[in-house]
Amino acid sequence: MTIKAGVIGAAGFAGIELCRLLLAHPEFELAVATSDALEGTLLAESYPAFRGVTDLAFSSHANADFTQCNVVFLAVPHTAAMSAAPDLLAQGVTVIDLSADFRLKDPAIYQQWYATPHTAPELLEDAAFGLPELFGEGLAAAAAAYAQGEAVLVGCAGCYPTATSLAAAPAIRAGLVDPNGIVIVDAISGITGAGKKATERTHFCFANENLEAYGVGTHRHTPEIEQILGIPGKLVFTPHLAPLNRGLLSTVTMPVAPDAPMPTAADLAKLYQEFYADSALVEALPMGSQPKTASVAGTCRAQVGVAIHEGARMIIATGAIDNLGKGAAGQAVQCANIVCGLPEDCGLSLVSVPV
Amino acid sequence: MTIKAGVIGAAGFAGIELCRLLLAHPEFELAVATSDALEGTLLAESYPAFRGVTDLAFSSHANADFTQCNVVFLAVPHTAAMSAAPDLLAQGVTVIDLSADFRLKDPAIYQQWYATPHTAPELLEDAAFGLPELFGEGLAAAAAAYAQGEAVLVGCAGCYPTATSLAAAPAIRAGLVDPNGIVIVDAISGITGAGKKATERTHFCFANENLEAYGVGTHRHTPEIEQILGIPGKLVFTPHLAPLNRGLLSTVTMPVAPDAPMPTAADLAKLYQEFYADSALVEALPMGSQPKTASVAGTCRAQVGVAIHEGARMIIATGAIDNLGKGAAGQAVQCANIVCGLPEDCGLSLVSVPV
Amino acid sequence: MTIKAGVIGAAGFAGIELCRLLLAHPEFELAVATSDALEGTLLAESYPAFRGVTDLAFSSHANADFTQCNVVFLAVPHTAAMSAAPDLLAQGVTVIDLSADFRLKDPAIYQQWYATPHTAPELLEDAAFGLPELFGEGLAAAAAAYAQGEAVLVGCAGCYPTATSLAAAPAIRAGLVDPNGIVIVDAISGITGAGKKATERTHFCFANENLEAYGVGTHRHTPEIEQILGIPGKLVFTPHLAPLNRGLLSTVTMPVAPDAPMPTAADLAKLYQEFYADSALVEALPMGSQPKTASVAGTCRAQVGVAIHEGARMIIATGAIDNLGKGAAGQAVQCANIVCGLPEDCGLSLVSVPV
Amino acid sequence: MTIKAGVIGAAGFAGIELCRLLLAHPEFELAVATSDALEGTLLAESYPAFRGVTDLAFSSHANADFTQCNVVFLAVPHTAAMSAAPDLLAQGVTVIDLSADFRLKDPAIYQQWYATPHTAPELLEDAAFGLPELFGEGLAAAAAAYAQGEAVLVGCAGCYPTATSLAAAPAIRAGLVDPNGIVIVDAISGITGAGKKATERTHFCFANENLEAYGVGTHRHTPEIEQILGIPGKLVFTPHLAPLNRGLLSTVTMPVAPDAPMPTAADLAKLYQEFYADSALVEALPMGSQPKTASVAGTCRAQVGVAIHEGARMIIATGAIDNLGKGAAGQAVQCANIVCGLPEDCGLSLVSVPV
Repeated sequence: MTIKAGVIGAAGFAGIELCRLLLAHPEFELAVATSDALEGTLLAESYPAFRGVTDLAFSSHANADFTQCNVVFLAVPHTAAMSAAPDLLAQGVTVIDLSADFRLKDPAIYQQWYATPHTAPELLEDAAFGLPELFGEGLAAAAAAYAQGEAVLVGCAGCYPTATSLAAAPAIRAGLVDPNGIVIVDAISGITGAGKKATERTHFCFANENLEAYGVGTHRHTPEIEQILGIPGKLVFTPHLAPLNRGLLSTVTMPVAPDAPMPTAADLAKLYQEFYADSALVEALPMGSQPKTASVAGTCRAQVGVAIHEGARMIIATGAIDNLGKGAAGQAVQCANIVCGLPEDCGLSLVSVPV
Repeated sequence: MTIKAGVIGAAGFAGIELCRLLLAHPEFELAVATSDALEGTLLAESYPAFRGVTDLAFSSHANADFTQCNVVFLAVPHTAAMSAAPDLLAQGVTVIDLSADFRLKDPAIYQQWYATPHTAPELLEDAAFGLPELFGEGLAAAAAAYAQGEAVLVGCAGCYPTATSLAAAPAIRAGLVDPNGIVIVDAISGITGAGKKATERTHFCFANENLEAYGVGTHRHTPEIEQILGIPGKLVFTPHLAPLNRGLLSTVTMPVAPDAPMPTAADLAKLYQEFYADSALVEALPMGSQPKTASVAGTCRAQVGVAIHEGARMIIATGAIDNLGKGAAGQAVQCANIVCGLPEDCGLSLVSVPV
Repeated sequence: MTIKAGVIGAAGFAGIELCRLLLAHPEFELAVATSDALEGTLLAESYPAFRGVTDLAFSSHANADFTQCNVVFLAVPHTAAMSAAPDLLAQGVTVIDLSADFRLKDPAIYQQWYATPHTAPELLEDAAFGLPELFGEGLAAAAAAYAQGEAVLVGCAGCYPTATSLAAAPAIRAGLVDPNGIVIVDAISGITGAGKKATERTHFCFANENLEAYGVGTHRHTPEIEQILGIPGKLVFTPHLAPLNRGLLSTVTMPVAPDAPMPTAADLAKLYQEFYADSALVEALPMGSQPKTASVAGTCRAQVGVAIHEGARMIIATGAIDNLGKGAAGQAVQCANIVCGLPEDCGLSLVSVPV
Repeated sequence: MTIKAGVIGAAGFAGIELCRLLLAHPEFELAVATSDALEGTLLAESYPAFRGVTDLAFSSHANADFTQCNVVFLAVPHTAAMSAAPDLLAQGVTVIDLSADFRLKDPAIYQQWYATPHTAPELLEDAAFGLPELFGEGLAAAAAAYAQGEAVLVGCAGCYPTATSLAAAPAIRAGLVDPNGIVIVDAISGITGAGKKATERTHFCFANENLEAYGVGTHRHTPEIEQILGIPGKLVFTPHLAPLNRGLLSTVTMPVAPDAPMPTAADLAKLYQEFYADSALVEALPMGSQPKTASVAGTCRAQVGVAIHEGARMIIATGAIDNLGKGAAGQAVQCANIVCGLPEDCGLSLVSVPV
């Protein structure tokens, strides 16, 4: 039976990618796509990639009927999500949130980084964390509840946290990383990561042929990565922008625990490959290979690589995703698949264009 | 029943795109992919977009068993195709050729432009022309023969001819274009159009941030476009390169026939929309809209637009395709679909990433 | 003696390029740079390429003292230029206008294309046309007047008209082109041509990996090209956007006059090379070579190439410029050089980065 | 008096950039440019940016007369430089080497990383290290010797070492960095950094729209950075490629010494600005600003920024250069300027195109 889906904030980059994935999904039906700014406009008019694909038009939030939906995806800015979620859940609609509102378990940390109090803190404890390869249990519980007819809430991981954590978690969970050491993350994102808003930063002529770091020491994905990896206060995270549309590469340098023997590169490659052996959407590369973002662009896939610096006793792990795919819309659909009892990669078998 | 497919020349850009499409196709099974240079190498090693997607390795041409295939795609340079096709056909294998070898009906014109005699001229007459929206009858006849168990041959249109002809044909076939006038085609291609070979032309640093015309007055797609449109000697075709991976835009300026009333832009938009009303993969845009290559990148779709210059009595039509999609591999699969009795867009419902 | 220069509208793309050129110029001194929106902001803060280069800050238009300037460049939108020029001239300040306001000699044509009456039509007759290679006499007259202490006005050619006319003029002025035939111009511009304003069109993610035509049949550079080439009503001009910062390539297809013998490619190459033999900033390429925009990016140089289609009796000429260089700021400084009695390429000897 | 200069290996990316800089230099004259592969070819034919700029042709190495040169730049691969330098020096020609051959002071470390014995180890001690902002004394001594008529040798720093060391040195030299801690460097380079050779890596279609790490743990710039910063064995260096032509951004994360008080961001910004106060070509940005590679592309300038992570007691410094400018040819000319007694930025006042 078709699962009816809605997308709130469908005109933004993550929202429209959700529409693309849901329109091609064998089990979901895109029933509602909202954009207050574009109410009444055809998706295909705003995004001509949809010409000949769908006749759907954007609805306003106020006029949309979400009660027809089994699942609603929130592709809205933070604060808008925690404002919208309670009502949807109360109406029995399962919510998959792509914003930051239901990621951080501690509302005090939320308030510290987002400079506003959390308005739905009662939902935080039960919200499943939407990073299936690392938090499968919470999603399994959500799936069980959904199967019982309950509306559930998933707070999907952010783009930088996803790439970073997929790269770091196998080593950290294996106890290889010094819990007192500092993990250094330098990550690079394509420009879709800066959003649809036309600004000087996103102007072609300023973004093209340029590299820069930004949000040094202040990026809001910092506490999220710390929470996922269980390394509070032990992360230095520096994001960078590079001139491409889609793609995010995170390079994670982790100190080996003083009491652990230094692993070999081969050991680590094996550890990573075993860690992701059952994951449909994450590929751990063989020793000596490095992921390329082009290999996963346009898809929900991730690739991770791992290497060592023996002298410095450091593990260098890298993770490549499409920031709108596994880093946003793709992961949200993956979570929805799991909640709805489907294979996690249902409708997500897209292969990146090879060149 | 699954249709077994082979790709000869699978490591090139058109060949690997064929592999991507066939691997995701619901009815075809990619059984053989050849590359003499990469024999034994996994597709996923050479093109890491295939990691986690397929375990297939390249075979050498000599060691490949094509008799297991119902259909073989030739993604090889000209002359190699006319060398390989006769044997395959004799073995009962249907051949979909992406090269130039079976496009030109007149072997003398082939020899003139390709500077070598045609070695299989006896196949030219029966070869179906692989541009379904404009030559549906030949493909329908091929489908009928295939259904009778015959092996058939399709010579697919080139990338520039496809975009150009989709843009020009509705006006020309409606008799609006002066048969004595000259049609001016300026077309722009992304760099995949220059092929996989690493050369100065394809070096990132020479291609990036550059625009140039090439092959002015000498490009081999000239006689093919003239043949398709029925305008021998009446074409000036100038191709250009621009810094993007995939995408081809052709701008066609056509003089209105002296005895025809000057059509309005609205008339033409209507004519074009009716012309492509039944085409699953070609969209004629509404009056005033221009196609974008980004809207069709990664897909087998095409978009066409049309405008007028009343004072100069000219029609300006534009066609946008992905040069490796509708311009090569996608069109080849579309032709194979038709030959095999499937819907023309079977397995080709890909939507371009919206951003 | 240093020539004091001002730039009105200095924060836009052409304006800031003027600042770059003037700051490096051996004879001009950049004394004033205005931007109402950025009043008080350092140029180096807004454009960090100027860090360590200049301490100049933007002034507001109202607070700027232009009477200290010998020459003021207007890098403002049309209508703003014809509003500002009369006062400056009255104050004895020479004006080099980069807008469209003083290009078209006929105010009726201006009104037709710009949808507003010309408010300073009395200046049109005496305004020198700023395209030195083709209109040297007017600039020489302006130089003579300037040398006498008069304030003069130059209306610089636009970017598309410059590239197009440099490519077309040698053939047209030699009488080779059919005066009753239609000249077809398809031109491609980088995204700086779309201006500094952050819009969906200039958003990196929409402009990148995309090609499109725009303003088909309606672009305002049409009457300007017609005026320059003396071909009223005989031009079909279609501009396109491609994903690069700087660069503009114009491909011009011209019918040979029926009574002229068809020139050979060698004849034309010789004609073009002689035509530009004394031009410091325009290079006519040898037969068989095509210009590349990368070869002139960041400079005030132009390159032109020429080829033929004998059967169709067409000349195909191509012109490559940097749309902000020879297409805007560089040409404006070239004109100012000439007016001020300097070598035309004074301070403009920039060579494009070779790769 | 004009200083005659030669460039050996002039057809490569660093070599041709040297030619560009020397052709525009007020004191140097480019007398010889060698390329064995392109002997007899005009620079302007191979690199059309030089059309109208120079009539020089490439010489073969064997046929070039270097004795006419005061200074010869070696833009050749490692091993070729140490093979050529001794003869040139013996002939009284000053040598500015851009390769790795005269950077590492310890020939054993050279052999370890370059897998070949050093064949001119006797030159290592006296070779000046070509990174003027950090090793001014050696260059001053070389200048004194040159003024006495001696031929001197400069081994210029590599691209990654330059950006990294400019970012790291002020903090390290101030004693702020833990000498037992590990310095983490993640750096991103444009594709010119991968050289002129046409390979799969440098193919537009593989490099475009892609990010990847490479040489993880094995890049040969590692010992050079360690030597410059005096941190042997304490560096983890991971380079990355991003799709732009020119630009290199290095992000350096350094642990604060346990016994040092944690500096504030303002302290560090002040420290950095004072450190580079007298440097014509390096700009330390104000607190809170991050360098952009676009701001220095096409120039010999560098920009550095600095920030802190107080909780982790880390300093995060960033350095942006043009890898072919301050990272190669520009720095070589800067060194030659100093050796020849000219201002360090003579002929290097280029300003990046602001957009």
